[in-house]
Amino acid sequence: MASPLRLAAQGRQAARLFAMQQRASLRTVTSRASSVTPAASAPFSSSSASATTSATATATTTASLPTYTPFVFAGLAIAGSLVAYNMTADDPIKCDAPTLAERDEQTRRDSNGAVDELSPMRLRMEKFIKEQQQIIIKGLAEIENSGGVAAVGGPVEGRVGIDSLAPREFRQDEWQRKEGGGGITCVLQDGVVFEKAGVGVSVVYGKLPKAGILRMRANHRNLGGDGGAETLPESLEFFAAGLSLVVHPRNPMAPTVHLNYRYFETANPDGSPTGDASGAWWFGGGADLTPSYLFDEDAIHFHRTLKDVCDRHNKGYFPRFKRWCDEYFYNKHRLESRGVGGIFFDDLDEASGGTPASDGAPAKTTDRESLFAFIQDGLRAFLPSYTPIIARRKDLPFTDAEKEWQQIRRGRYVEFNLVHDRGTSFGLNTPGPRVESILMSLPLTAEWKYMYEPAPKSREQRLVDVLRNAREWV
Amino acid sequence: MASPLRLAAQGRQAARLFAMQQRASLRTVTSRASSVTPAASAPFSSSSASATTSATATATTTASLPTYTPFVFAGLAIAGSLVAYNMTADDPIKCDAPTLAERDEQTRRDSNGAVDELSPMRLRMEKFIKEQQQIIIKGLAEIENSGGVAAVGGPVEGRVGIDSLAPREFRQDEWQRKEGGGGITCVLQDGVVFEKAGVGVSVVYGKLPKAGILRMRANHRNLGGDGGAETLPESLEFFAAGLSLVVHPRNPMAPTVHLNYRYFETANPDGSPTGDASGAWWFGGGADLTPSYLFDEDAIHFHRTLKDVCDRHNKGYFPRFKRWCDEYFYNKHRLESRGVGGIFFDDLDEASGGTPASDGAPAKTTDRESLFAFIQDGLRAFLPSYTPIIARRKDLPFTDAEKEWQQIRRGRYVEFNLVHDRGTSFGLNTPGPRVESILMSLPLTAEWKYMYEPAPKSREQRLVDVLRNAREWV
Repeated sequence: MASPLRLAAQGRQAARLFAMQQRASLRTVTSRASSVTPAASAPFSSSSASATTSATATATTTASLPTYTPFVFAGLAIAGSLVAYNMTADDPIKCDAPTLAERDEQTRRDSNGAVDELSPMRLRMEKFIKEQQQIIIKGLAEIENSGGVAAVGGPVEGRVGIDSLAPREFRQDEWQRKEGGGGITCVLQDGVVFEKAGVGVSVVYGKLPKAGILRMRANHRNLGGDGGAETLPESLEFFAAGLSLVVHPRNPMAPTVHLNYRYFETANPDGSPTGDASGAWWFGGGADLTPSYLFDEDAIHFHRTLKDVCDRHNKGYFPRFKRWCDEYFYNKHRLESRGVGGIFFDDLDEASGGTPASDGAPAKTTDRESLFAFIQDGLRAFLPSYTPIIARRKDLPFTDAEKEWQQIRRGRYVEFNLVHDRGTSFGLNTPGPRVESILMSLPLTAEWKYMYEPAPKSREQRLVDVLRNAREWV
Repeated sequence: MASPLRLAAQGRQAARLFAMQQRASLRTVTSRASSVTPAASAPFSSSSASATTSATATATTTASLPTYTPFVFAGLAIAGSLVAYNMTADDPIKCDAPTLAERDEQTRRDSNGAVDELSPMRLRMEKFIKEQQQIIIKGLAEIENSGGVAAVGGPVEGRVGIDSLAPREFRQDEWQRKEGGGGITCVLQDGVVFEKAGVGVSVVYGKLPKAGILRMRANHRNLGGDGGAETLPESLEFFAAGLSLVVHPRNPMAPTVHLNYRYFETANPDGSPTGDASGAWWFGGGADLTPSYLFDEDAIHFHRTLKDVCDRHNKGYFPRFKRWCDEYFYNKHRLESRGVGGIFFDDLDEASGGTPASDGAPAKTTDRESLFAFIQDGLRAFLPSYTPIIARRKDLPFTDAEKEWQQIRRGRYVEFNLVHDRGTSFGLNTPGPRVESILMSLPLTAEWKYMYEPAPKSREQRLVDVLRNAREWV
């Protein structure tokens, strides 16, 4: 998609950025509403430093609820939180060997900006998620502009602009963090179909302190070299890139959807990029659905799409990642899941991405290329997984009471994201985050009604019952 | 206020409760709307085990942002979070010496239920906050029923019941936790004047594990005995009681207010109650104001009332507690305060509640009786601090845009409470909390609008400016 010329420009821009020692304040570099057409991707020939917001944390979830291990999740695709890795050094990385960012910049120069199968995974992931971001916002904008909203119940709260006939578009903000990194945040809010839809991309180069290395070694034993803890360096460069999206439709019959795919890599102790053999890279991601009113066929379609993607790569993935999703997106203080599930995974590398050993047989490992193919399939499946659902729900009639139930459920969504989602809360607790990008995951409106209880045997109660007992949909 | 007969009944009920080994599930014992009259206090002749929800954490705040020390704050008056202290033991406390709860029960029996100046502080605090809870909800209900809402802008979102002519009352729920403890939560929501007003009381007996003892000793060096750490017991009984309230008015010109006062005590290592000399008891509390539209005279009146209370007890309190409030109620990810301030303090005991030493002179200590008098004054000052403000704002005209700004500010309130308030998030992360009591602090409705920016020099911008530079109001 991107022309060599534009990619060459990217390299130059990256060089400028790093030369500037990333000292510029966090600011919105460009902030405009632009028509979402293929040409609109031009503004995203951005720097090598950009970072998504992630409403989603990535996490090492096990059968029991995991303990709070910020460095495990924060390293992945969390917007502002990556500053944590820079805590050990105010200045950008300076050592004899070129940094990962400098290497990538050089690669871009050498290849005239072209990124292909032989390019480092860092550049391939960045290119892929930026392309997908444009495809997704184009797909969502088409739905937004394709029809009205049901007359019964109608739009609540008299939002301004809702009756406008002008095409509603994603606002696209490119931003940088002074600590290094940045991102492109695309948001459409107050639409006819979408109350709020946010799609963010991040690409971050940073430095992981020793405490983070030690924690991450729990899941990646070669991280920082395969010697003992005493051989670890004081810090390691890392790279993280990801795409996150959250879509909150207006119609209470249409479900909220969330997705995040991310890639993480650490440099070798000598500063050289990670080879495939070191294990110090991994993928994470997933997608999950959160209805206010449950239509079984929607949940089935969503899970079927994800299962098909998983099965094409590894028959073991879907059951494992569905369970992980149910465990992770759990509002434990409410004793209910945030939604009806989907898939969630993290730390997927050669060993964990392969097929587990059974009966003493050696485990089958996988390779980075295969996992990247899986990630790509997963991200490409977003529109097919969601658009048929929103198409059949966006114009259904609804009552004020049904809208209110949606608002109560939105409150639960806020609770999960602000209380339990480790990426969000860690990000917000870290200096210098781009708050608006992290919190684009929150609904436009939410409600907390004391002791609100659905009527017995109502549709509302049925949803709660399902959320309290995670169900297999396919 | 309470008759000897009723207090005797309390003792019996407490005995029953503990005999039941506090194994009953968390449930609402009574749940009804009742007219708020003096007679309505009768239903609160409740058990010795009840616990407020606390939207407010209590915390050891210093000039720098404090680290996460759950046991320092959670022990005080936090609803469900107190279960943490019971983590070391599934069974209720069993030792040769009677427990604090058993001692208090015995005291009630011996005194025929009367509580006076010679009673243990635990019983005095419980009695006082339950009385104040009734006085406060009566005062708020009077305001709720005293007038309508401005026609301009009017009530938003067509809430049901808002036009009802029936008196609007606080719903009063008494509840218990299976882990021990419980509370009385009073909420009025969807009113004409108050969008949501919650006033909760808690009284909890529990067990503090060694890790908690060690953390709390940072502020209370005699806790668990005055020997070294090696002399500490594996756990210590504790008692905590508090009153918390949050009031969110409907009119955007009227500010939200929050208040919390609490008392904490640990038993001596031999199981006997804390003597005045041990230092293992303390008070915490404060009140703060959160306007969407800033009227200086409101902030001044509120602070003046609090300063008068403080000054009657110690001239050093107000400046110290105002600063502590500004530091604690700070949405650090937004770089702004939650509101315009008030007072906040914690760990107030003989040493810290006295007058600090200067120029090498010995510090003046205080006593528990004096601090209880201060707490009482503070809580009694609530209605005088707030009712003149709500009276002059509740019927002001407002526009839809002003209502929306209020909703945005409500979103910030939610962010603080769910992300930064250590009591709330710790409570929600702890098994078995009464979530509805903890989250009564949240507004009925809130909004998150991506990149919402007030117009330059607008009233909205002026508020933000003040929130970014905490101001002295008196």
